[in-house]
Amino acid sequence: MSHQSSGESVVQGVPVLTAVEQAIGPELLEAEQILAEELHSSNPYVCDILHHSTRFRGKRLRPMLLLLTAKATGGIRQDHKILSAVVEMIHLATLVHDDVLDEAETRRHVATVNSRWNNETSVLFGDYLFTHSFHLASSLDTTYACRRIGRATNMVCEGELSQIKERGNLDLTEEAYFKIIDGKTAELTALCGHLGAYYSQSDPSVVAALEQYGRSLGLAFQIADDVLDLMGSEGKIGKSLGSDLLKQKLTLPLIRLLQTASEQESQEIRQLLAHPDETTRSRLTPYFERSDAFSYTSRVAKNLASEARNQLELLPQTPARRILADIAEFAVQRTF
Amino acid sequence: MSHQSSGESVVQGVPVLTAVEQAIGPELLEAEQILAEELHSSNPYVCDILHHSTRFRGKRLRPMLLLLTAKATGGIRQDHKILSAVVEMIHLATLVHDDVLDEAETRRHVATVNSRWNNETSVLFGDYLFTHSFHLASSLDTTYACRRIGRATNMVCEGELSQIKERGNLDLTEEAYFKIIDGKTAELTALCGHLGAYYSQSDPSVVAALEQYGRSLGLAFQIADDVLDLMGSEGKIGKSLGSDLLKQKLTLPLIRLLQTASEQESQEIRQLLAHPDETTRSRLTPYFERSDAFSYTSRVAKNLASEARNQLELLPQTPARRILADIAEFAVQRTF
Repeated sequence: MSHQSSGESVVQGVPVLTAVEQAIGPELLEAEQILAEELHSSNPYVCDILHHSTRFRGKRLRPMLLLLTAKATGGIRQDHKILSAVVEMIHLATLVHDDVLDEAETRRHVATVNSRWNNETSVLFGDYLFTHSFHLASSLDTTYACRRIGRATNMVCEGELSQIKERGNLDLTEEAYFKIIDGKTAELTALCGHLGAYYSQSDPSVVAALEQYGRSLGLAFQIADDVLDLMGSEGKIGKSLGSDLLKQKLTLPLIRLLQTASEQESQEIRQLLAHPDETTRSRLTPYFERSDAFSYTSRVAKNLASEARNQLELLPQTPARRILADIAEFAVQRTF
Repeated sequence: MSHQSSGESVVQGVPVLTAVEQAIGPELLEAEQILAEELHSSNPYVCDILHHSTRFRGKRLRPMLLLLTAKATGGIRQDHKILSAVVEMIHLATLVHDDVLDEAETRRHVATVNSRWNNETSVLFGDYLFTHSFHLASSLDTTYACRRIGRATNMVCEGELSQIKERGNLDLTEEAYFKIIDGKTAELTALCGHLGAYYSQSDPSVVAALEQYGRSLGLAFQIADDVLDLMGSEGKIGKSLGSDLLKQKLTLPLIRLLQTASEQESQEIRQLLAHPDETTRSRLTPYFERSDAFSYTSRVAKNLASEARNQLELLPQTPARRILADIAEFAVQRTF
């Protein structure tokens, strides 16, 4: 079991994360405390759900990105810590709603809100996290963060809606796939880069570069996640896998597989995808073994990670910059 | 059929609403246009859902309240129109999510988003409306509106979560019922009164009075709605009724009925409530006919409407003030 309470070390077990801990550990903990205070409720039912949901929080990637970007561009201020809590809350809201959409039963080895309580509670608890994130963002001096956060979360929702619309579309193109993951994942990581740099009073070119760093990194992360959903081991990852197949969501390896398969194989694969069940994952394995789908996907993800790293060249050489580069490496290493 | 496109007159058919139209018709239309522009999407799927959802919008109570409050306290400014679009968007978001929670199939004679598309789309479309409302609120000069809106929407979610928790609790007290409806309904109408007066640069005592006007009015409206769910005619109201019974949500008439019934009757009623089906509404009728539950509920709602009207005494005598008083009257008249 890998439960974490909010008081424990937030990052552990992976070398790059140890470096993060050394560089911004205290600030990450402060962001955690802001989050915990904002989410405190006098309603015992809400408290129960809040307490439970802290158990399936993960790498804290988004607060980490925001604080590291801040550190790499001038230094971490109070606004950065507040905004780190905000982006983590938004991420948590999208996870809670994703679990309803995916009908997932576990996340990080812990029962999801929808399976522990019910779908209605999940929908409202997600809303509760969304509205709290905006409330917290509005505690800053100006409306700048609210505007950027409002806009980015719009794009996240549009990306997720497109994903639902394209479910079952076995002719989904790479371009359409990238548009979906750009919205549902990369908008939020791009926002972290943007806000981290902006609230350090960085030059607009630096803000734009770090926004692009976050975007490329988010895309690389999502591709790696999608590969894990197809190939990972449930015991290791700690959440239900194969859900993309069950929901008929095409991801990059499958798109490539269908594009490059022979007419005969393509028909067999489409047959499998059209009637998905628990065996679909293993029944696809021989087709993947005969194709370049995974090496192609790995190449695309690595290129994105490399594009992310290139955006850092404007920055002075600091430990924070080095860690940002390492995170881009780690995003793809954990899978490929 | 009572479909309304956003181009049509927004208020019609009821005398008080004709007066509203005369007093603030152009400003209501401007708020509609702001809403339509903010919600425009380049994504055709999102456009379809947006277009569909405009068909089940109703009385536009919240924009009306905000604009009338503005007019009654000094005059309608551009900020008021923007905020009217914001509160209507938040209300629409909660309706869309409510329909998922209630598994409702129609609203205002039109198929709900969850029945026309699916639950996932409803969840995400509701999120999309929430994030757009915050984005639009952040276009104002200061964070004041964002803060108030963030806080009020938190309370709405807590109210809705409490309602879910109390489902099936046949011992729900009046106090707990009021706490729930204060969050889920009255917070938003209170916000309309507050923002309408605040953005007219009103004295804090006037802002507080109009917030309280909105709160009492919202409570009265919700009680009247709850009565309709128990006694209304589906053909007339245009939405599925009896859903509170099916979901085992106790509302004021039932709480009163259970409190005042004989031991024997109370047991029979509890038996009916514990196993609800399509016949439960009609099977409760004889118990209601023998009790004071509806007259008691009517008295409570009328007292709240009267409390709302009393809050207006600080204001100069204007047509807008008179209409606000009439709306409080209408809130309870439509039911009792």
